[in-house]
Amino acid sequence: MKRMDLKNGDLLVDMKKRIKKTPIENHKVLNEAYDYESKVSFVRGMRVELDNCIMLYISGTASVDEDGRSIHPGDLKAQTWRMFKNIKALLESEGADWHDIVRTTCYLADFRHYDEFNEVRNAFYEEEGLDPVPASTCIEARICRPDLLVETEAIAMIPKGRER
Amino acid sequence: MKRMDLKNGDLLVDMKKRIKKTPIENHKVLNEAYDYESKVSFVRGMRVELDNCIMLYISGTASVDEDGRSIHPGDLKAQTWRMFKNIKALLESEGADWHDIVRTTCYLADFRHYDEFNEVRNAFYEEEGLDPVPASTCIEARICRPDLLVETEAIAMIPKGRER
Amino acid sequence: MKRMDLKNGDLLVDMKKRIKKTPIENHKVLNEAYDYESKVSFVRGMRVELDNCIMLYISGTASVDEDGRSIHPGDLKAQTWRMFKNIKALLESEGADWHDIVRTTCYLADFRHYDEFNEVRNAFYEEEGLDPVPASTCIEARICRPDLLVETEAIAMIPKGRER
Repeated sequence: MKRMDLKNGDLLVDMKKRIKKTPIENHKVLNEAYDYESKVSFVRGMRVELDNCIMLYISGTASVDEDGRSIHPGDLKAQTWRMFKNIKALLESEGADWHDIVRTTCYLADFRHYDEFNEVRNAFYEEEGLDPVPASTCIEARICRPDLLVETEAIAMIPKGRER
Repeated sequence: MKRMDLKNGDLLVDMKKRIKKTPIENHKVLNEAYDYESKVSFVRGMRVELDNCIMLYISGTASVDEDGRSIHPGDLKAQTWRMFKNIKALLESEGADWHDIVRTTCYLADFRHYDEFNEVRNAFYEEEGLDPVPASTCIEARICRPDLLVETEAIAMIPKGRER
Repeated sequence: MKRMDLKNGDLLVDMKKRIKKTPIENHKVLNEAYDYESKVSFVRGMRVELDNCIMLYISGTASVDEDGRSIHPGDLKAQTWRMFKNIKALLESEGADWHDIVRTTCYLADFRHYDEFNEVRNAFYEEEGLDPVPASTCIEARICRPDLLVETEAIAMIPKGRER
């Protein structure tokens, strides 16, 4: 599978000299992200090991279940809750939780849902006991499936040595 | 406030083993971000301490004043200038400035403003003496309030030991 | 050019105490990003040196050629391929490749192109031999020029000492 060789390679890289990174997944709550022709086009998240810090890049995550189905169609509040729970599950698979998130980027398919979204976000953050809450940006944008109303990506950071 | 305990906790985390992070704020120029039912749904920015480097994640920032009001309605140029000044103030509260920004993401409510936006951006960058200017992405996207025409988020990095 | 002095400066910063960063460019495949009145409003990418790790922030990149022209108008697949090649070229100028990318953010001007986009993405990732593929978010958003159908930004990380 490692085809970064002379054929593609104007570049010869010592493969040992890479930053260590591994995919983040939690199949109990969220399937892998299959797209066109059942290939995985992106991972649910990427764990990256720096010196004494691990960065967790969580991909855009929506209200999708363990079989990859959109759930709670038309219900912004239920979708938002499930989305946050999905991110929590991805974090947990790396020994992390929402306290470790430093920033989220949120996409709402329709900004008329902004108040409802914040209501659920506040309730979720309160349940998690977050203080401070993460930095964030929220814009209106269409999401890859029309029945998905909200999507969030996130960056978390944990110290090396955190138990999984 | 720390409720990440047995009730929520499928996960038991040693709270001491977190990456140190603190909210970024500057109440002289920009209020805290209150949303639904006057709860803070996000912080204006998050300071994260790695080994010898501090990352500053600045939340999506717009032309909002110290009382949380949208200012300069309808005036893209004035909004852009205020937005950049707001980000500058957030950075300054951490001993940083625009030279420390590595990347921005910019959202324009209407791309017909793109030339005006760049005109102000170039003028601001020149006033700050930036060389190089940051990496950036700019897309068209609706922002959380209809009277806001432009929003920018940013990532800055400063060395540990920078005086505040 | 360094005007961050007493005029602007409520803040006096020891300029030596900055995180080292340099612009990323590859003029053979991609021009510099000139905007309003032929000023560079953003760099094509920014290289940031942490302790033992280098972060490469690649700006939003589209199907643009070495003279700054949009190429392959109307052809999503050809634009996607060129965009990925442009990012590859930017990475190569820093001794990096697509294996070093941890996350992308993709913007499609029209989500009806999502399947075609994923088809090309999968083909490109396969050619590069990526395993795992990066974390990613993909939303629909208008891009700065109407003839550009797709844009991607990326974050890569490489160890210090990687040869350029």
